[in-house]
Amino acid sequence: MAISVADMMEEVRRKRPLVHHITNYVTVNDCANVCICAGGSPVMTDEAKDLPEMVALSSAVVLNIGTLNERTVESMTIAGREANRNDVPVVLDPVGAGATSYRTSAARLLLDRVEVSVIKGNSGEIGVLAGIGGKVRGVDSVSGSDGMEAAVSALAERTGAVVAATGKTDYVSDGRTVSVMGNGSDMLETVSGTGCMVSSVIGCYVGACGTSVESVSAAISVFNIAAEKAVEGGKVFGPGSFKTKLLDSVYGLTKDDVDGSIRMELRKV
Amino acid sequence: MAISVADMMEEVRRKRPLVHHITNYVTVNDCANVCICAGGSPVMTDEAKDLPEMVALSSAVVLNIGTLNERTVESMTIAGREANRNDVPVVLDPVGAGATSYRTSAARLLLDRVEVSVIKGNSGEIGVLAGIGGKVRGVDSVSGSDGMEAAVSALAERTGAVVAATGKTDYVSDGRTVSVMGNGSDMLETVSGTGCMVSSVIGCYVGACGTSVESVSAAISVFNIAAEKAVEGGKVFGPGSFKTKLLDSVYGLTKDDVDGSIRMELRKV
Amino acid sequence: MAISVADMMEEVRRKRPLVHHITNYVTVNDCANVCICAGGSPVMTDEAKDLPEMVALSSAVVLNIGTLNERTVESMTIAGREANRNDVPVVLDPVGAGATSYRTSAARLLLDRVEVSVIKGNSGEIGVLAGIGGKVRGVDSVSGSDGMEAAVSALAERTGAVVAATGKTDYVSDGRTVSVMGNGSDMLETVSGTGCMVSSVIGCYVGACGTSVESVSAAISVFNIAAEKAVEGGKVFGPGSFKTKLLDSVYGLTKDDVDGSIRMELRKV
Repeated sequence: MAISVADMMEEVRRKRPLVHHITNYVTVNDCANVCICAGGSPVMTDEAKDLPEMVALSSAVVLNIGTLNERTVESMTIAGREANRNDVPVVLDPVGAGATSYRTSAARLLLDRVEVSVIKGNSGEIGVLAGIGGKVRGVDSVSGSDGMEAAVSALAERTGAVVAATGKTDYVSDGRTVSVMGNGSDMLETVSGTGCMVSSVIGCYVGACGTSVESVSAAISVFNIAAEKAVEGGKVFGPGSFKTKLLDSVYGLTKDDVDGSIRMELRKV
Repeated sequence: MAISVADMMEEVRRKRPLVHHITNYVTVNDCANVCICAGGSPVMTDEAKDLPEMVALSSAVVLNIGTLNERTVESMTIAGREANRNDVPVVLDPVGAGATSYRTSAARLLLDRVEVSVIKGNSGEIGVLAGIGGKVRGVDSVSGSDGMEAAVSALAERTGAVVAATGKTDYVSDGRTVSVMGNGSDMLETVSGTGCMVSSVIGCYVGACGTSVESVSAAISVFNIAAEKAVEGGKVFGPGSFKTKLLDSVYGLTKDDVDGSIRMELRKV
Repeated sequence: MAISVADMMEEVRRKRPLVHHITNYVTVNDCANVCICAGGSPVMTDEAKDLPEMVALSSAVVLNIGTLNERTVESMTIAGREANRNDVPVVLDPVGAGATSYRTSAARLLLDRVEVSVIKGNSGEIGVLAGIGGKVRGVDSVSGSDGMEAAVSALAERTGAVVAATGKTDYVSDGRTVSVMGNGSDMLETVSGTGCMVSSVIGCYVGACGTSVESVSAAISVFNIAAEKAVEGGKVFGPGSFKTKLLDSVYGLTKDDVDGSIRMELRKV
């Protein structure tokens, strides 16, 4: 890798990318806060009239369909197209794709209308979009990660996006290279919106470092290593204290923390 | 009681019920997180086109009118009717009924349109809906619990729902039996949305254990005992740390915690 | 000052003002919780049909345009006018004014349609509205506080509102007097929505103590002293634990804490 994960982490903190979100109302506050903790500056707006100027100012746009509705799908389309016009990278988190046909269709519609730079989902959502199947219950994946390496590559090749599937093992691919990562903590599953938070961190990294397997993988690694460090201190007693510590940990993560803990492997497809 | 509160707690954790919410944007994140902590899996969606499939997958539906508007009242109607068609229990939290006529009307409209399994409110809201009077200021009750035992029974008999009125003392009735409970902590009043959180936990319990005075009472007891345990550790310094500890406590509550602390009495009406 | 900041803090806690908010969905939960911690009772509703009655019951109305849209700008207009009719003070937080023309126009439209009692923004937003220039990036100010003393006075004189510009130094003016304040913590910038939280606390103070340079300054001072106290304990390890401690601290602040730490100077314009 030309530039290390730890160096990218510093780059994000130095550049403080403005990351525009159209996201769900369930986890939006955590997305805003993790964005700040990772080094970015979050902004959320979904009114059509406000979007062109706000997107033009932004370093990245994150579209998360967690609580989508007819109005916000239109807002996402406008924001995405405006981002495309301004060469601003677009991260799509197809929350719940595969759980209902409306969500699957909305994800596909956005992929059709907008040139998406990064698709980030859980293994169920990515399995569904990649057409290899995948099981989603509500907004949680119940698929394992079998075949995920092939799935991210295939979906990347078909869409031109960098594709990330998160789970016990995380996979990121651009169709040529696959990054396979093993950091994280079981506690991440006990807090609502940790998947959404990863998408916001990815927004920070592609906004500051450009879109690549490396930058998307760096974002996922930094978040997951922070989760490991959060638990290590012995001050996590459940999901409440874990979330607090997780934000502290993303904020305070050092280059040594990253270098000493990272579990990432790059493979050719 | 055929099955103990502690056993129901384990049942919820084992079954991991999918609990669909249409709720307010103020406390929605806490509802999602407490749902996970209690053993459930939360999902929030309010777009009409997404509702039929999502409701059909769910074990329970929670309708909370905290920040209702014309669009979401329609969504709640669709979700509630779809739940009725699929024999999915519906929990209604009539937030602020009695404070304004719009809220009172919306609560009554939903009770008219949807077969509601559980009505959960504070004593002011339940007093208003039961027609015994009740004072609500904003979204908080300023009524005491005088006459609440009769109010829950009367409203239960009239609506066919299990009715719960929460406060210093909590009352639950199906019109034949009343459960009277005394667990809880004064700190619960210092955090926005603890009432909404109880409704989400009720969604978990009726989703996993069926709708009954026992399952609704179990949900309330578990939440309130968790609040007591949260405070006991001596690490609560105010509303911020209390909320963190409360989530930890709901997550980590043991059968012994429940058996050793529960204050519940069942009476015939 | 006729009544001290510490006395006003007690007055708010004693009166428990009902503070109605139409605010953004990003930080709304923190606004509700800080309102409780400061001694108020929050309520959030934005449906036109629910507003007249709810506003009439309220002690103050807070309008925050953080995630405004066409529907909520109308709701804010209705709420503001109803507040005017009922002599309920209106606090306007023009989030992101200056970042996009839509936000600047919306802030001006509301100032045009509603008699606003308090305008509270960061130095960039206030600079833009005062017409002295000001730079806003997303929703964050990138202006320094040069000229802010003159800006708050000029905007106050033009609008008839008490105007507050927050930053390292905070300025509040009614066009005749300026209050200059120096409390706070750098950690405030690491948490999303601390500016919104200040507006909610201002709602509590004008709701309980009336609208004046003194009451608005008291609200800002109490919040910022609480931030200092939060950090002092040595238990803040990052933005997550800071937010938790901040809420605890606003809740537990004593008159001695205020009297011992306050840095406020009143000057004639």
